[in-house]
Amino acid sequence: MTTLPSPLALARDLIRCPSVTPAEGGALACLAGHLAAAGFSVERPVFSEPGTPDVENLYARIGRAGPCLLLAGHTDVVPPGETGAWRHGPFDGAVADGVLYGRGAVDMKGGIACLLAAVLGFLAARGPDFGGSIAFLITGDEEGPAVNGTPKLLDWALARGERFDHCLLGEPTNPDRLGEMIKIGRRGSLTGDLTVHGIQGHVAYPHRADNPIPHLLRLAGALLAAPLDAGTAHFDASNLEFTTLDVGNPSTNVIPASARGTFNIRFNDLWTLASLADELRRRLAGAADGARYDLALRPTNAVAFLTRPDAFVERVADAIAAETGLRPVLSTTGGTSDARFIKDACPVIEFGLVGQTMHQIDECVPVADLDRLAAIYRRVLDAYFPADAALQKPA
Amino acid sequence: MTTLPSPLALARDLIRCPSVTPAEGGALACLAGHLAAAGFSVERPVFSEPGTPDVENLYARIGRAGPCLLLAGHTDVVPPGETGAWRHGPFDGAVADGVLYGRGAVDMKGGIACLLAAVLGFLAARGPDFGGSIAFLITGDEEGPAVNGTPKLLDWALARGERFDHCLLGEPTNPDRLGEMIKIGRRGSLTGDLTVHGIQGHVAYPHRADNPIPHLLRLAGALLAAPLDAGTAHFDASNLEFTTLDVGNPSTNVIPASARGTFNIRFNDLWTLASLADELRRRLAGAADGARYDLALRPTNAVAFLTRPDAFVERVADAIAAETGLRPVLSTTGGTSDARFIKDACPVIEFGLVGQTMHQIDECVPVADLDRLAAIYRRVLDAYFPADAALQKPA
Ligand SMILES: [Zn+2]
Ligand SMILES: [Zn+2]
Repeated sequence: MTTLPSPLALARDLIRCPSVTPAEGGALACLAGHLAAAGFSVERPVFSEPGTPDVENLYARIGRAGPCLLLAGHTDVVPPGETGAWRHGPFDGAVADGVLYGRGAVDMKGGIACLLAAVLGFLAARGPDFGGSIAFLITGDEEGPAVNGTPKLLDWALARGERFDHCLLGEPTNPDRLGEMIKIGRRGSLTGDLTVHGIQGHVAYPHRADNPIPHLLRLAGALLAAPLDAGTAHFDASNLEFTTLDVGNPSTNVIPASARGTFNIRFNDLWTLASLADELRRRLAGAADGARYDLALRPTNAVAFLTRPDAFVERVADAIAAETGLRPVLSTTGGTSDARFIKDACPVIEFGLVGQTMHQIDECVPVADLDRLAAIYRRVLDAYFPADAALQKPA
Repeated sequence: MTTLPSPLALARDLIRCPSVTPAEGGALACLAGHLAAAGFSVERPVFSEPGTPDVENLYARIGRAGPCLLLAGHTDVVPPGETGAWRHGPFDGAVADGVLYGRGAVDMKGGIACLLAAVLGFLAARGPDFGGSIAFLITGDEEGPAVNGTPKLLDWALARGERFDHCLLGEPTNPDRLGEMIKIGRRGSLTGDLTVHGIQGHVAYPHRADNPIPHLLRLAGALLAAPLDAGTAHFDASNLEFTTLDVGNPSTNVIPASARGTFNIRFNDLWTLASLADELRRRLAGAADGARYDLALRPTNAVAFLTRPDAFVERVADAIAAETGLRPVLSTTGGTSDARFIKDACPVIEFGLVGQTMHQIDECVPVADLDRLAAIYRRVLDAYFPADAALQKPA
């Protein structure tokens, strides 16, 4: 019998694979090797779409009995930025003073390493007949366009008849300390482009022109004038942020023909895309004052969703409390994640490392956090597949 | 004795010189030939400045006695735009149905042709001892950066001891009909860049960021909130127009670090550059609400000026009335012109053709307008240098 790899060893191996989206970089192959050796059937589907790069993905499953716990994540990482600015090379996997450095350390090669270590330990202890199934759904396209990743991989799995009872996604969820926060949902995201059409002219003859900029100021102000809502039981208030204003007129003596602003809304479960669009159009109409404008809402697959707290959430919270002494907050804050795709297949929650350094220079994770997170995941597995239930199961 | 060239012939010759700024295109050489033949001493200074193209200019004078009437203008033209869109080639000087077509027909090769035709006729009638002096100050850099043109040419002339009593600038001044409008001043022009500094962040975590766009909306609104003034006896109200807003943030999930707006003010004689800057800073401070912003005012040589209506203005108005039957409005509307430089050397007024087609495809002028404008200019010369005054002058 071989010694099981530690979460640190697995995380180092993954960090050393330069898997910047859409490159596979050896990361999925590394996972596939460990999973196959542990008895998983492993598939590596590649998905394509015109205009986007092909992306490799991984799907693995052990067991055919129910319940099936899905463990999800991504091995791709954002670019390291200025490599020379890193204290330790972003793909070196260096450990210094008990801290592992590297791109993906927390988002989320570290999280995947902990999931894998927990599963390997669980299987070593319980064997393949543990009274259920475990599946891994790992994409290489979470940080990129997210087109050839989780949505297609999930469709592919469902089309093959795969079914899941719960999903645990290992994204970093803790703001400051491991154990603080589980994500049980996410706000939706909607981007809109507001274009105002004026009449071009010379600044010296403003009465012959119609400057679109004051109209844009007024319409943007109307969108920002009042909060969209005050939040709900599980969600923060919805929020609208203008992300850019662009006229692009280089001539200081010319009144421009049009002006454009772009905004993004993070919205909670009080809104559907349709009701939100209605509200935006209502606010703009109220401030139009004769201005000619277009509001174009970009297609989005990020609607708000909530996994209602249930026994599964309680199990995960108990596991966290047992290892960290912290009772995690059940949160829906932050950006979108691939959970928005998985939520249609089964209840999904997210719990992983501390996100503080994600996407930054010197992304890093304390080795102690890796060990502790792996221990939490192991407790989840033990609770999800209780030994007595497996014993009761017909052979 | 030779026949004098008609305004049309002179205008055609000038239009056929492709003198798009900064090219001389033969236009100044054409003028120089006529002026030298008529007895003018002609100089062709070329001015340079790092970062701008060298520009040719022309200064010519006949007579040393006072008074000296300065006739000013430019032979450079704006680019023709899409040449194929012109009914007649922009540098062909075609005449169709009594209308002369070509780039510069009204702005302002046509005006220069009328000035030259009037002067040639005047000198043919009166000879060189007409009881005063006439000078031509013609630049090839009015439509461009205006750095190596009128300001330097005027300094050059003043440094040589040249002095002028009045200036008539032949820019197009009439909105619709020849004779409607004399310009007796111009509003000033000031351009400002307003930059708001926020804190970049992720749209999902707005509390960790400080979006500069709402600050910019508010500060821009404060600049636009109230009129700067209600106008004066000879000036329209001062006016502020935002010409561009530029954030340039391509990421719809990122709150930008800064946002910039640029505005241009056309201001009247109620304001100096200093008092205007004070007012802008006062308005911004009142709406700052903690925002960090910079207001940068671009250097400008365009302050408001007024040539107070006097006997000279009356003479020009009388000449216009005699030829057109219209009593011209004394106006200060429109953009800036080289009159803003000349006003420091002597009282300057502007009168020329109808500006409607200037800077456009199919710029054109009725031949009848050329003849009539030349006749107006001739009347101005006759009134400015009365024959009896010349007779009274000691030989
Ligand atoms: Zn991630
Ligand atoms: Zn002009």
